[in-house]
Amino acid sequence: MQSVKTNKVVAFQSDFGLLEGTVAQMYGVAMGVDLDLKLMDITHNIEVFNTWDASYSLFQTCPAFPSGCVFVSVIDPGVGTSRKSVVALTKAGHYIVTPDNGTLTHLVKHVGVSALREIDESVNRVKGSEKSHVFHGRDVYAYTGARLAAGVIDFDGVGPELNPKDIICHPTPEAVVSGNRVDGMIDILDPLFGMIWTNIPIGVFEDLKIDFDTMVSVVIKYKGESRYEKEVLYGKSFGSVKEGEDIIYNNEIGYFAVGTNMKSFVDKYNIQSGFDWTISLEKI
Amino acid sequence: MQSVKTNKVVAFQSDFGLLEGTVAQMYGVAMGVDLDLKLMDITHNIEVFNTWDASYSLFQTCPAFPSGCVFVSVIDPGVGTSRKSVVALTKAGHYIVTPDNGTLTHLVKHVGVSALREIDESVNRVKGSEKSHVFHGRDVYAYTGARLAAGVIDFDGVGPELNPKDIICHPTPEAVVSGNRVDGMIDILDPLFGMIWTNIPIGVFEDLKIDFDTMVSVVIKYKGESRYEKEVLYGKSFGSVKEGEDIIYNNEIGYFAVGTNMKSFVDKYNIQSGFDWTISLEKI
Amino acid sequence: MQSVKTNKVVAFQSDFGLLEGTVAQMYGVAMGVDLDLKLMDITHNIEVFNTWDASYSLFQTCPAFPSGCVFVSVIDPGVGTSRKSVVALTKAGHYIVTPDNGTLTHLVKHVGVSALREIDESVNRVKGSEKSHVFHGRDVYAYTGARLAAGVIDFDGVGPELNPKDIICHPTPEAVVSGNRVDGMIDILDPLFGMIWTNIPIGVFEDLKIDFDTMVSVVIKYKGESRYEKEVLYGKSFGSVKEGEDIIYNNEIGYFAVGTNMKSFVDKYNIQSGFDWTISLEKI
Repeated sequence: MQSVKTNKVVAFQSDFGLLEGTVAQMYGVAMGVDLDLKLMDITHNIEVFNTWDASYSLFQTCPAFPSGCVFVSVIDPGVGTSRKSVVALTKAGHYIVTPDNGTLTHLVKHVGVSALREIDESVNRVKGSEKSHVFHGRDVYAYTGARLAAGVIDFDGVGPELNPKDIICHPTPEAVVSGNRVDGMIDILDPLFGMIWTNIPIGVFEDLKIDFDTMVSVVIKYKGESRYEKEVLYGKSFGSVKEGEDIIYNNEIGYFAVGTNMKSFVDKYNIQSGFDWTISLEKI
Repeated sequence: MQSVKTNKVVAFQSDFGLLEGTVAQMYGVAMGVDLDLKLMDITHNIEVFNTWDASYSLFQTCPAFPSGCVFVSVIDPGVGTSRKSVVALTKAGHYIVTPDNGTLTHLVKHVGVSALREIDESVNRVKGSEKSHVFHGRDVYAYTGARLAAGVIDFDGVGPELNPKDIICHPTPEAVVSGNRVDGMIDILDPLFGMIWTNIPIGVFEDLKIDFDTMVSVVIKYKGESRYEKEVLYGKSFGSVKEGEDIIYNNEIGYFAVGTNMKSFVDKYNIQSGFDWTISLEKI
Repeated sequence: MQSVKTNKVVAFQSDFGLLEGTVAQMYGVAMGVDLDLKLMDITHNIEVFNTWDASYSLFQTCPAFPSGCVFVSVIDPGVGTSRKSVVALTKAGHYIVTPDNGTLTHLVKHVGVSALREIDESVNRVKGSEKSHVFHGRDVYAYTGARLAAGVIDFDGVGPELNPKDIICHPTPEAVVSGNRVDGMIDILDPLFGMIWTNIPIGVFEDLKIDFDTMVSVVIKYKGESRYEKEVLYGKSFGSVKEGEDIIYNNEIGYFAVGTNMKSFVDKYNIQSGFDWTISLEKI
């Protein structure tokens, strides 16, 4: 798949927050390209400069969208440096407009990128914006995404082709099964309800023959030091346990998550996410 | 009114917050149903699991919308349990897609529900989403709302008919007039400007012959204990009193509210909302 | 330019926040006017009642939008008083619907207003909304903006013509060059990344013959008292300095800004914005 017809949808994510009109300027530029574009947001509350979370957010969100949508992701700690500005076409038929800085990590790994192009700023940059070097989100990314979504340019029109194998990716350790146990990491936190999401795919429990409504041993460590050890129910949903009780469940993107019914697991046990936070699930 | 033609508008509310792409996944599913849908938000900052506030929010917001709009409300503490997933058609011609958990309370009482259907998940659920039991907002509610708004299904296509009389509602005490006094409760707070909104309809002052620009005695109690006693001006708007002075006024949905000009009444007097917070207004 | 054809886009800003459905009610009213309107947000997190920030936000955001867009701005400390409700047509072909309370300051100064009309509420007000005097944002501004954007009324249909010279404006001191130095003020803060934005236009460094990648002396004072004195690099973007180092750069709307790479300059030095905060840049 080297090209997919776009459908006028552009979805934005950034670390700009919603406290001022920064996001709106991207919308304005897009409206200047084509008034019929359908603009929407993923989130603008990605932690500032956190390209891992940006990557996870795309992985979590894009699959819900139909083929032909354009995503503009602006978490760009290197704005104005030599980092590349690219558009990736994923195997799901989504275009991702982003700096090449790790933001594509999870899509590369879990969905696959079938083609990659570098944005040619001599064409795909708002005219007259050259004096500012700090807002490529508006001047380059939103503008290019809008032109692509509107059909003003096709994928070829983005700029020269690059090799998807050269995409900059964060390391993404795999969960490892050994005997009755699987060892993984905490990929990300649910910031509102306070669950943790692991990198352990839900298929593992089928292999380990662990059924719903049985207890599983859970160990969470930070830099190798135990922070949580408990037997926890593997349930279909929070309703399977009493208020205040912990539960392992299948999250909506196919991985195990751990939470507390009606409470924040994260706050209760002071758990965070990242490479230093490992989790083991073991059949009892 | 057993059916109303939808107009492609879908407005969402939830307790998901905007910190990640959860809401966006609902948008993505809707775009997959029909790219011409007009998607917008009520708010995604309803207090987590607070179905009373969810209900009040619909009551406050829906009347501003034209007939034929679809509202998807996902405040769902019972996700994955046996609570019913329904679509209510109100007498204002709005469709509300929601768990049947109290979220319809104020619309039932103040607007009226003319017909109710249970969502048939064998039809109205995203294909392939069966392994996740925690995100019905995306897999069932957004999907069903989008299909209804797009005309992919009509109201009959939602699922089997239920009796609107069986809708689960929170108790909603009425304000009571006795002599020169009316006793009510504090329904909700304005979270930003810090006003309190009561359940006392503004028609009451006509009955009590209280005119604008006269003083009224206000008593607020928490569990029967006085927290605020003052004579307060009944004014047309905040401009009727000096900065820092309290005022009774007509809120925009037809009930009395009490606030402080340019300040937060809520913070100043440490007032909250709910059944335990009563308010009396008396002619002087 | 006494009239410009509208293009169905309506962009909203307010100090309502996103904690409840207040903004959504404005959307609902607009949908009731014309289902084909394209509704979007600038921000709803303008500081409560801060008409200076409201003005700056329009100045920062509107230029990114094409001609023919309508902007509805509701920062309205005087709601219900005699302050005028107006629609301004700017020289960029944008319509701004707003109370006349200082919100137009920066557009008047930097873009120019070519025509002004007062909203005739006998025509341009939601029918039946007369009993509420506190939500003109919905009943008057959103409604009028929607009607104008939809072509239900043209600019004449807003109401009687006013003289743009009578628009209420905040004072806006000019940056002053003397010798090798330019003295200005801190117009506004970037709330997320923690930069300060000055009122000193970037053309000044061309006059002073200050090139990129040279050091400049920066002095920031609060009420005449020094709060920050340092030699700072004038760089193209944050990548020009090391993490934690300060930098002067061109912001995206043509003024000098000062920030810290990967950190918040505002937090680090406890700097705020406003008339009391002056900044001087001097060639070394």
